[in-house]
Amino acid sequence: MKAGPSQEEVRRQNLSSLLRHIHLGGPASRAALAERMGLNRSTILALVSELTAAGLVREELPRDTGRAGRPSLVVRPETARVYVLAFDVGVDYLAAARIGLGGTFLDRRETTCPRIGMHPGEAAGLLAGHAKQMMAAAPPDAVCVGAGAAVRGIVRHPDGLVRSAPNIGWTDEDFGGDLTGRLGLGLPVLLDNESNLGALAEHLRGAGTGLDDLIYLHGDIGIGGGVITGGRLLRGSSGYGGEVGHMIVNPRGGRRCGCGARGCLEAEAGQNALLDAAGHVPATTGRQAVRTIIEAADRGDVTARSALHTVGDWLAIGIANLVNLYNPAAVIFGGTLPDIYLGAAAHIRSSINTHTLAAARENVRFRVCRLGNDTVLVGAAELAFGQLFDDPLNHRAP
Amino acid sequence: MKAGPSQEEVRRQNLSSLLRHIHLGGPASRAALAERMGLNRSTILALVSELTAAGLVREELPRDTGRAGRPSLVVRPETARVYVLAFDVGVDYLAAARIGLGGTFLDRRETTCPRIGMHPGEAAGLLAGHAKQMMAAAPPDAVCVGAGAAVRGIVRHPDGLVRSAPNIGWTDEDFGGDLTGRLGLGLPVLLDNESNLGALAEHLRGAGTGLDDLIYLHGDIGIGGGVITGGRLLRGSSGYGGEVGHMIVNPRGGRRCGCGARGCLEAEAGQNALLDAAGHVPATTGRQAVRTIIEAADRGDVTARSALHTVGDWLAIGIANLVNLYNPAAVIFGGTLPDIYLGAAAHIRSSINTHTLAAARENVRFRVCRLGNDTVLVGAAELAFGQLFDDPLNHRAP
Repeated sequence: MKAGPSQEEVRRQNLSSLLRHIHLGGPASRAALAERMGLNRSTILALVSELTAAGLVREELPRDTGRAGRPSLVVRPETARVYVLAFDVGVDYLAAARIGLGGTFLDRRETTCPRIGMHPGEAAGLLAGHAKQMMAAAPPDAVCVGAGAAVRGIVRHPDGLVRSAPNIGWTDEDFGGDLTGRLGLGLPVLLDNESNLGALAEHLRGAGTGLDDLIYLHGDIGIGGGVITGGRLLRGSSGYGGEVGHMIVNPRGGRRCGCGARGCLEAEAGQNALLDAAGHVPATTGRQAVRTIIEAADRGDVTARSALHTVGDWLAIGIANLVNLYNPAAVIFGGTLPDIYLGAAAHIRSSINTHTLAAARENVRFRVCRLGNDTVLVGAAELAFGQLFDDPLNHRAP
Repeated sequence: MKAGPSQEEVRRQNLSSLLRHIHLGGPASRAALAERMGLNRSTILALVSELTAAGLVREELPRDTGRAGRPSLVVRPETARVYVLAFDVGVDYLAAARIGLGGTFLDRRETTCPRIGMHPGEAAGLLAGHAKQMMAAAPPDAVCVGAGAAVRGIVRHPDGLVRSAPNIGWTDEDFGGDLTGRLGLGLPVLLDNESNLGALAEHLRGAGTGLDDLIYLHGDIGIGGGVITGGRLLRGSSGYGGEVGHMIVNPRGGRRCGCGARGCLEAEAGQNALLDAAGHVPATTGRQAVRTIIEAADRGDVTARSALHTVGDWLAIGIANLVNLYNPAAVIFGGTLPDIYLGAAAHIRSSINTHTLAAARENVRFRVCRLGNDTVLVGAAELAFGQLFDDPLNHRAP
C-alpha cells in the first residue's frame, strides 16, 4: 500500500521507462516513443534531452532507411560509451563480458578451468583480471554503470551471499563482495543464480520476449530453473524460489541427489542419469557425451533410445508439475535440455499431456532458448543494468 | 515499461492507498496515516476530505481511549454504508455474506445443498436470492460497491469462466455472468478459485499478514492451493497457477485422481486417501470423518495412526516441493489440513526436512489458517473490494 509517487519519482520513472525502451527495443524516433509510452511529444522531448545531457542516449539520423525524403531523427543508446560488466562462474569455466547499453557485446574473455570448482578468491581474481583488461581496452570516455554475476548455486536475495553451490564446492561465500572489492569500481557486483538470470535474459531478449509468465530450464550437470511470473522474476522470501532441480519426482527408491534427498528431478533427469542409463563409458563428458547418446538414439541404438526415454519420462513429470503449478505461457530449454527435449519430443509431450490439467497445458509452448551460450551473460548484464534504470540521472558512475 | 503515472493517476493511487490502509489496518489518525504513507499532513487532509465527501470514510473521536486530554480524530471506514457481496460455492453448501468496508461481516446466509454439486443456474438463483434478502435488510443509504465469488474449480483469469470444477460437475460455465445478470446491480461478480481467495484472505487479514510470499493449502475432498509471491497472487498466464493438488508426487503406481492422472497430491493425500487407508466405513463423511480418524490415531489406534502417516508422507513430499519451488515464508493450512498436519506434525516436519534444501526451509513457518471457515468469503470480499480500490472516487455504485 505504497502512496503514489512524487513528481520527482514520476520523472524518474519516465526517464527509466524511456531508457529501457531504447535499451530493449532499439533505436526509435521520438514520435514512436511517445506512442509506445503514452506520453505527449513535449514530455518525450524533455526526457530525451535529459538523457542526452547525461550521456546515455543520442539523437541522430537513422542508418540508410531505403526511403526517399528526410528521415526523422532516432534516439539511440550510447552503446559504446555506457556499459556493464557481466560475469558467469561456470562449473569448469569463467566468463566475463563488457556489454553496452542496448545489449551489445563489446568485449568478452573466457578461461577454461583446469579442474571442476575453484576457490572463490581465485575465481574472483581471474574474473577481476579479465574485467580490468577489458576496461583498459575500452574507449577513454566509456563508463561502467554496473556489474552482475551468475553463479550455479543457491544465492540469497538481495545481498547475494552464495549459500550453497555444490557443483563448485562453495558454501556461504560472499563472492560478490570479494569481486566488488577486487574491481574497486565503487559499484557493487550483483549476484544471482544462473537459471534466474537465464530466465530474465530469455524473457527480455530471447525466446520469451513479450511473455509475462515463463519457465526457463537449464540442463547442465544438474537441472536449474528460473521462473518469471506476472512479468517479474519469482524469488520467494529469500531468493531461493524456482529450485526446480530439487523437486522430488521419484520419492520411492529414486536416485540419490547431490542435495542429499532421493528422486530429485536433477538426479533422475540430469546428465549423469542419462549417461548411467546409456551405460556410457566416459570417453567424453558433459554436453558432448549427451550429444553422443542422442546421436546414437537417432541412429536407432536401442540402449541409447531407452536411456533417452527413461530420462525423458522423468523430465516430463517435472515439466508437467511446473505447468500445473505456474501455468506458464512458455517453457524454455537451455544448456543440454534442448538436445534431450528435441531427441525425445513426441515421447515427452505425450507424457506431459497425460500429467497436466487440460486448461493449464492448452496454451503452453515449448521452446529452445534463443540466446544460446550467451543466455547467462545476457542475464547478468540485465541484472547490472537494473541499477542504472532505478535512477538513470543520479546513478553515479565511478 | 509503463511510463510514470500522470498527476491524476498519482492522486488516485494515493486515495486508493489511504483507503486500503483504513480498510485493512483499521481506524487511524491523520498523523498516523501521514507517517505510514510517507506523505505530508496537508496531502493526507486533502485525501481524507475527498474520501469523506465520497462517503467512504468519516472522521470522529475515537472510542474511549482510556487517556486523559483531548484525543485526535480518527479516520474510520464507512463500514455500515459501504459494502460488498461475497459468495462461496462449496461442494455441498452455498454461502453469501454482506461485508462492510473494513472487513466486517454485516450479514450472512448459508444453504446446505441436499446433494453434492448443483446446476450452476440453480446455484446462482439461490445465491442471488440470499443477496437480495441481505440487501433488503441493509440500511437504506447502504451502497454495494462490488461482488466476488469463490468456486472450487479452475477459473480463467481475468474473465472468470469456470473451466472445470469436477467436484461439482461444472465445465466451461459462465457462472459469474449468470450471477451478475440475476443480481442486476450493474456490477460484475468477479470469480476466482477458492484457494486463491483463501491465500489472498490469509495474506491480507489472517495468518500470513505482513508476509509477501506464502502458500495457502486447503484440504477438502481435494487439495487446493493458492500462492502469494512478491505480495501478489500468482495467477500464471491464464489464471490457473497454483494447482498444487495436481502435482504428481507418486508417478509409479499412484492412486487414480479425478483429473485422470495417477499419483496427484490430492489423490495421495486427500480425504479419500485417508479414509481408504484407515479402512473407514462411511458412517460419517467429510471433515467429521477425518476428525474421527485423527482422534482414533491420538488414542493409539494402529490402523488410524498408520493411515495418518501414509497420507502425511505424501503431503510432506508435496509441501517439500512447494518449499523448494516457491521459497515461501509460510505455508498455511486450511480446511481439513490443520487437523491432518497437527495430527502428524513431527512425522510430516521430519519428512519435509529430508526433502527440502536447507536454505529454502530455514525460514519457512507452518501455520494454521486464522480466519477458519470465513477464509474463502473474506477472500471473495477482498477480490470485490479491489474494484473500489482501483479508483475510489470514480467507482460508480449502482
